Amino acid sequence: MAASDGATRKLTMNDIRAAAERLKNWGRWGGDDEIGTLNFTTPEDVVKAARLVQKGKVMSLALAYDAKGPQGGKSKYPALGRFNPIHVMLRTGTDAYSGVLDHRKIRGADDIIIMPLQCGTQWDGLGHIFYGDYMWNGYDCRTVTSMGAQKCGIEQTREKMVGRGVLLDIPKMLGMEHLPDGFAVTNEHLDKAEKHFHVTVGRGDYLLVRTGQIEAKMAAENWDGYSGGDAPGLAFETLDWLHKKQVAAIVTDTWGVEVRPNQTSEANQPWHWIAIPIMGLTVGEIFYLAELSRDCAEDKRYEFMFVAPALPITGAVGSPANPLAIK
Amino acid sequence: MAASDGATRKLTMNDIRAAAERLKNWGRWGGDDEIGTLNFTTPEDVVKAARLVQKGKVMSLALAYDAKGPQGGKSKYPALGRFNPIHVMLRTGTDAYSGVLDHRKIRGADDIIIMPLQCGTQWDGLGHIFYGDYMWNGYDCRTVTSMGAQKCGIEQTREKMVGRGVLLDIPKMLGMEHLPDGFAVTNEHLDKAEKHFHVTVGRGDYLLVRTGQIEAKMAAENWDGYSGGDAPGLAFETLDWLHKKQVAAIVTDTWGVEVRPNQTSEANQPWHWIAIPIMGLTVGEIFYLAELSRDCAEDKRYEFMFVAPALPITGAVGSPANPLAIK
Amino acid sequence: MAASDGATRKLTMNDIRAAAERLKNWGRWGGDDEIGTLNFTTPEDVVKAARLVQKGKVMSLALAYDAKGPQGGKSKYPALGRFNPIHVMLRTGTDAYSGVLDHRKIRGADDIIIMPLQCGTQWDGLGHIFYGDYMWNGYDCRTVTSMGAQKCGIEQTREKMVGRGVLLDIPKMLGMEHLPDGFAVTNEHLDKAEKHFHVTVGRGDYLLVRTGQIEAKMAAENWDGYSGGDAPGLAFETLDWLHKKQVAAIVTDTWGVEVRPNQTSEANQPWHWIAIPIMGLTVGEIFYLAELSRDCAEDKRYEFMFVAPALPITGAVGSPANPLAIK
Amino acid sequence: MAASDGATRKLTMNDIRAAAERLKNWGRWGGDDEIGTLNFTTPEDVVKAARLVQKGKVMSLALAYDAKGPQGGKSKYPALGRFNPIHVMLRTGTDAYSGVLDHRKIRGADDIIIMPLQCGTQWDGLGHIFYGDYMWNGYDCRTVTSMGAQKCGIEQTREKMVGRGVLLDIPKMLGMEHLPDGFAVTNEHLDKAEKHFHVTVGRGDYLLVRTGQIEAKMAAENWDGYSGGDAPGLAFETLDWLHKKQVAAIVTDTWGVEVRPNQTSEANQPWHWIAIPIMGLTVGEIFYLAELSRDCAEDKRYEFMFVAPALPITGAVGSPANPLAIK
Repeated sequence: MAASDGATRKLTMNDIRAAAERLKNWGRWGGDDEIGTLNFTTPEDVVKAARLVQKGKVMSLALAYDAKGPQGGKSKYPALGRFNPIHVMLRTGTDAYSGVLDHRKIRGADDIIIMPLQCGTQWDGLGHIFYGDYMWNGYDCRTVTSMGAQKCGIEQTREKMVGRGVLLDIPKMLGMEHLPDGFAVTNEHLDKAEKHFHVTVGRGDYLLVRTGQIEAKMAAENWDGYSGGDAPGLAFETLDWLHKKQVAAIVTDTWGVEVRPNQTSEANQPWHWIAIPIMGLTVGEIFYLAELSRDCAEDKRYEFMFVAPALPITGAVGSPANPLAIK
Repeated sequence: MAASDGATRKLTMNDIRAAAERLKNWGRWGGDDEIGTLNFTTPEDVVKAARLVQKGKVMSLALAYDAKGPQGGKSKYPALGRFNPIHVMLRTGTDAYSGVLDHRKIRGADDIIIMPLQCGTQWDGLGHIFYGDYMWNGYDCRTVTSMGAQKCGIEQTREKMVGRGVLLDIPKMLGMEHLPDGFAVTNEHLDKAEKHFHVTVGRGDYLLVRTGQIEAKMAAENWDGYSGGDAPGLAFETLDWLHKKQVAAIVTDTWGVEVRPNQTSEANQPWHWIAIPIMGLTVGEIFYLAELSRDCAEDKRYEFMFVAPALPITGAVGSPANPLAIK
Repeated sequence: MAASDGATRKLTMNDIRAAAERLKNWGRWGGDDEIGTLNFTTPEDVVKAARLVQKGKVMSLALAYDAKGPQGGKSKYPALGRFNPIHVMLRTGTDAYSGVLDHRKIRGADDIIIMPLQCGTQWDGLGHIFYGDYMWNGYDCRTVTSMGAQKCGIEQTREKMVGRGVLLDIPKMLGMEHLPDGFAVTNEHLDKAEKHFHVTVGRGDYLLVRTGQIEAKMAAENWDGYSGGDAPGLAFETLDWLHKKQVAAIVTDTWGVEVRPNQTSEANQPWHWIAIPIMGLTVGEIFYLAELSRDCAEDKRYEFMFVAPALPITGAVGSPANPLAIK
Repeated sequence: MAASDGATRKLTMNDIRAAAERLKNWGRWGGDDEIGTLNFTTPEDVVKAARLVQKGKVMSLALAYDAKGPQGGKSKYPALGRFNPIHVMLRTGTDAYSGVLDHRKIRGADDIIIMPLQCGTQWDGLGHIFYGDYMWNGYDCRTVTSMGAQKCGIEQTREKMVGRGVLLDIPKMLGMEHLPDGFAVTNEHLDKAEKHFHVTVGRGDYLLVRTGQIEAKMAAENWDGYSGGDAPGLAFETLDWLHKKQVAAIVTDTWGVEVRPNQTSEANQPWHWIAIPIMGLTVGEIFYLAELSRDCAEDKRYEFMFVAPALPITGAVGSPANPLAIK
């Protein structure tokens, strides 16, 4: 698919199959690899990323995890069973005040969370999406059972998610507050953005692409349409761009990275079909990029140290995170 | 309490009250502060911490979150209602294989976690422990209700937990595999450790004190006695040492930082009574320090960049984390 | 408050206090009683209730427990943290089909529920509502801590909830499909209904009052306003009627039994203030009475055997139930 | 398999296959039936059952649902992910006492349960066990997905679980406190018990077989070995007996009804392979039969009205219950 028609030509299953052949990274890091493109980042890259810390500013890219989160809005997309975090207490300050804890000789509070691992700011693990009966690196999809992911669990990434972060702020480049729903970010946009922001995406980078959609929803105080609804996002062709660039991971501020309505009705989230199981590309979603956007505009530096560890939940196919951009 | 008798003299409630007077930081960062000693770390400190990244090695200090975690072992201490993480699936690869997802035109897996926020590697938030009817900075303990912490929620720390990490490896210094239960780490030990490891703990540092207990439990494949049982840990007097040093946070590899049996039977976890509500000291527990210990012994560098973001769960009094030591 | 103005006069706190004095049952069944009016039903009543089974028809009065339940609708009332049941699987038929269970030599499915105990058809336990600092029988409200109810837990009722059921079908009597929001069912209505349906409510009975609201919401396929919104329901004065009648329990098909908007703005749910902590009256809510209504209209018999056991969840202040009317 | 060797001959897969052919009820109640043998109970049976209520005594056959439940004991059997109920509060009396609820103008408590549906006293739904790729009535096992059971969900039984209960108290008959682990209850035992207790099991009955194991575990205050360990229980041949008798359901006081170690090592719980998916027999487990046993011994009446409604949780493969025996 040529860049020139990146956003407009209708995709077919043949395009998806061809992309799977063209972009397949299975075996690239050995037959027993479980982390895919996270391998692109080297220790030297981590050292260089740390050098980008020059003013000591730490920015969180996470939404708060609470009942006001992005789940539960209206959507055209059939529900996946995800809900906003449920936070409940095991002991409280009101227990303390009431004197009922004093037999313990300590007054304390404690709490529990009940949450889908992909209900807010989150990493998709490589066990999250399948291509036919296969997952990343050719593992059988049946290795992800009700007991969890026996292969490619998110815990495999526990010492990754550290490297150079690069922000490509597409609406900023285009002079918009935020991209409209259905807007496809093409390879041409990405190329232009590199030039516009004087930054070159490279091997092992964590690439953050901003659309502004999350701020639009937050400003409206209404998440309707965010989860599974229409959205701006990456065109299918960006898979080739990301493959060539050899990024470690790709992150956006939307529910599902790719443009919706999708470029085809034959597959749902066709970009995901390739990115995760075929390329082994780790994907970050629902990242809050507003503050980072403002800061980069201010100091004109669109690169930073990026540290966004997943929780090592054994057998998980995703993880919440509090991703940090450190400049 | 003099350093010379740091581990041996029996504490009384008067000692605790005196420490509360002596070490109280309320108001130090303003009347509306909710993060306490995390304020000690400056942007300059963050820049300097990043300079410690020299070989690009990332080490996770987290235990895996799963059914084999440290909860559920036998204990003398009355149960707090904590349990190991419960990880359940919303969709699976076996669903995919069975064809039951194909009406969605995408094959994927999804999952949920149910977990106490302090069931594994974790930060204690400043809403976790009360002193009388008060919490950090003098807030009324009744601000922590069944609806969560209206003050000092862990989400306030979302852009903290980044700085210079320093490891004081006490058993290593003493030529032991791990410290025995009941062993109190005193100010003298801490002073000696600084000299022994050629590192000086300073303002804004994240101090990690290793006891080795966690490795002993893991080697035995039995967590009995870990949660609430006897343990090596900090003596009560170390509160003064930490106060003087102005550390940002203190971390150990035990369930509860301080030595158990405690140095008194009048209070449970007397060190906690002061550290959290009075000093506003953020505390990390159940950190896995074994790999870091080996690495520091090897390269003789006991300082590193430390990045350990809490999940910004609104109103939470603790948080799981995947803390990273980056060298 | 006279019956004649049962639905119209504005209540004051004085009315509530007077009712508390007038209707207080504390000590009536001994100082250590934890089940209140459930004591009214005698073994003889149970025998008589069983005699009402004459055609062998069993009717369930429960809504299905699932994601389509009554929680989550829009409401003027601040949220209580209740949500619809979350049902997740531990093993599935798709696991079985995929062969991943065969090492166990048995193919099976298993599941988990996560649910507020008062999210659907439910009993309010006597620990559910407090009057000042007191609960039923004068127990200190501090006996209901984060650890659960140490007094009046729903498990105390495990051998109750069996007796004669009587349906008073108010909209049926009035020739309406369902009562409108804000409609107060008064003592006069109850008296008339007894005559209309040729049934006399007596000591130890389980009284079911139908408003039809639940069917209206279900027909509209929209629960907005059901939880905490305006509703038909019992007038405050019915407390006296129920007290005189000595019913074992009272049940309606609404979220909260009593008429909303409430008859006062000084208290929320003033009827509850008296019914549960002062009278010790067990209350059933969100019961589905449509089928029972049709059946009683058909056979003209408004009495039946009623069996509606609560789950004996230790320390719970409520319980889901599958209440049965057996005729 | 002859009755004479019911407890001793080693089962083979051929025996299981032969039983499947011999005892298959698929289609017996139509191709779209989802409740199997529960169909055996007629309205007349319900009327007759109600006539058994003669002294008005209600006995609960449920264990309390709490942290002291039967899950978590040591077992030779690989864990199924079941745990004891987790009961947490959404509002408390200590909140009330602390004044933090008063802005609502009502003081109340509320709670949540998190529990496997088969963690305590429970019904197995017909979606719980598969035979090859099939479930009850020949439905494809893939109808039980991560979204729940699309066929044979427990909600289908919402107006069943009412009928005549019969207790066969095997240890009582044999003059034992409780049957030892590995003791197989054979058809001969069942026949003898009918004579011994002057009761005849018939079509549509709910048959309760007591082994006493649950009381032994409770007396020892230790559930080790209860879940999945060795146990007394029904011999495989009892399937034929139950089939001939046309019982509605079968209940025991053990974790898994059938004798363990099982009579074969080729299948795990071979009796389950046939009872649930082939016969469509609803099974009750972990029922507490001690009080009922004492009462029946006292009044010499081993029949009673049995009412044990499952919660209509949509798509569930099991349900907790508070089963009542009413005499």
